[in-house]
Amino acid sequence: MAKIFAGIEAGGTKFNCALGTGPDDLRAETRLATTTPDETIGAVIEFLRAHARVDAIGIGSFGPIDLRTGFITTTPKPGWRNTDLAGAIRRALNVPVAFDTDVNAAALGEHAWGAARDLTDFIYVTIGTGIGGGGMVNGKLLHGLVHPEMGHIRLPHDWQADPFPGSCPFHGDCLEGLANGPALEKRWGHRAETLPPDHPAWKLQARYLALACANWACTLSPQRIILGGGVMMQAQLLPLVQQQTREILNGYLQSPEISERIAEYIVVPQLGARAGVLGAMALAKNL
Amino acid sequence: MAKIFAGIEAGGTKFNCALGTGPDDLRAETRLATTTPDETIGAVIEFLRAHARVDAIGIGSFGPIDLRTGFITTTPKPGWRNTDLAGAIRRALNVPVAFDTDVNAAALGEHAWGAARDLTDFIYVTIGTGIGGGGMVNGKLLHGLVHPEMGHIRLPHDWQADPFPGSCPFHGDCLEGLANGPALEKRWGHRAETLPPDHPAWKLQARYLALACANWACTLSPQRIILGGGVMMQAQLLPLVQQQTREILNGYLQSPEISERIAEYIVVPQLGARAGVLGAMALAKNL
Repeated sequence: MAKIFAGIEAGGTKFNCALGTGPDDLRAETRLATTTPDETIGAVIEFLRAHARVDAIGIGSFGPIDLRTGFITTTPKPGWRNTDLAGAIRRALNVPVAFDTDVNAAALGEHAWGAARDLTDFIYVTIGTGIGGGGMVNGKLLHGLVHPEMGHIRLPHDWQADPFPGSCPFHGDCLEGLANGPALEKRWGHRAETLPPDHPAWKLQARYLALACANWACTLSPQRIILGGGVMMQAQLLPLVQQQTREILNGYLQSPEISERIAEYIVVPQLGARAGVLGAMALAKNL
Repeated sequence: MAKIFAGIEAGGTKFNCALGTGPDDLRAETRLATTTPDETIGAVIEFLRAHARVDAIGIGSFGPIDLRTGFITTTPKPGWRNTDLAGAIRRALNVPVAFDTDVNAAALGEHAWGAARDLTDFIYVTIGTGIGGGGMVNGKLLHGLVHPEMGHIRLPHDWQADPFPGSCPFHGDCLEGLANGPALEKRWGHRAETLPPDHPAWKLQARYLALACANWACTLSPQRIILGGGVMMQAQLLPLVQQQTREILNGYLQSPEISERIAEYIVVPQLGARAGVLGAMALAKNL
């Protein structure tokens, strides 16, 4: 009998939950508002218990998180600081629980069923309200000391061309401070999705994302960079990022993947809006 | 009988060779000038053949290199473009040959016998004539698509405070362009080792290295960052880099390793000038 995996995408505004044997065989799905830990985790447990059998559970969570303890740690989200998310679910269901960052879960989902099939080294970065990245090196998820915080790298910032000081409360003009959704809105006075495709916002946005892609490529040497999240829904953005990344690297990384096939090197996710919850299922499958 | 490993540190000015069972039992060592591939590789083979037995050979090479083919590829070093380094040595000695970047070899040496013992995730970066980095993720050397080129990341560059345009022929003011040995000399008009410890050069140098350490920490989440190479021989530099890295990260990466023990987080190599050749021996041992 095929194993039943549950995936929980634990986000700051909602928890997406699904269970089944894989993306083509989902037996149940639900979307729960993120309210208090007791209420939301209680509702997740109720959803999971409503089904005859769950063999393993994967949780891809907003952070910062502690992978060893299964806790959400120093989040600014009211009420969620020091929440024992993985433990509460493990105790209630009494099955193995895998716990990782939301971006590592999405990376694993793309590896199992999406844009990173057959790759051993790649990164998945989400560009939305926040910017975060996960990925694989040598076929294993990247964790290290804590977990990557790829959105907080520092980049060249031409203050004359772009006087916006950046919106990150920790770093000001790190990548997230310059290029997340709220930064776009604050800089231009309009929500990102209302800016026309030929607005100068997109070239500048692509510049910061391309500088970041170049830095990640130089540091990790990934076989592919997957850029997801709400901001990447603007279809005009991806080609600009591809082109500028190649220009910034300027032929230094000697690889046809970059010099000749940049459109396959920097891509958007194949699992779309379901990347998170399917990735969480992949975490469970991976146990 | 203990296995005999040979290590070859293939550098642009010299090839350091050693063989033995480990760092405390070196049976022979030699240092050969890097002239032409025929002459230098011939001398390496002669050195290796002069000994009764070699069980495996490790080569840590200057680059760029192709790990799959064992070639040095597009180096600007005259005569060395497209040189079959690993193959020539393998055919001559007929034993297994491991081939990797000089920095991955040094990283492996520090893992076997130096500052990275017991770690699974760390990076080793050399700051000298060039800047390059290697390291481990999940206990395995980092390779990816080609190999990391950590020296070529882009950083904030305050042109008013530092009008030096950078010396990298590919990128201008990437990290290597701003902070390698030649950049120091060009910016200040004196060789790095002649600048007094309280010269403003060192604070600026530490700023660029700290921005890079912060970016690497955010991207890879290493358990430790080892900074080697000639420029790091200036003892006043390391504490400045440690302090500024902590300031730049500003408490965001929640880890006592960074917030409380930065002096153990960013360190210099323990194997010193022998890191390269011992690392190459570690490559052979690792086969």
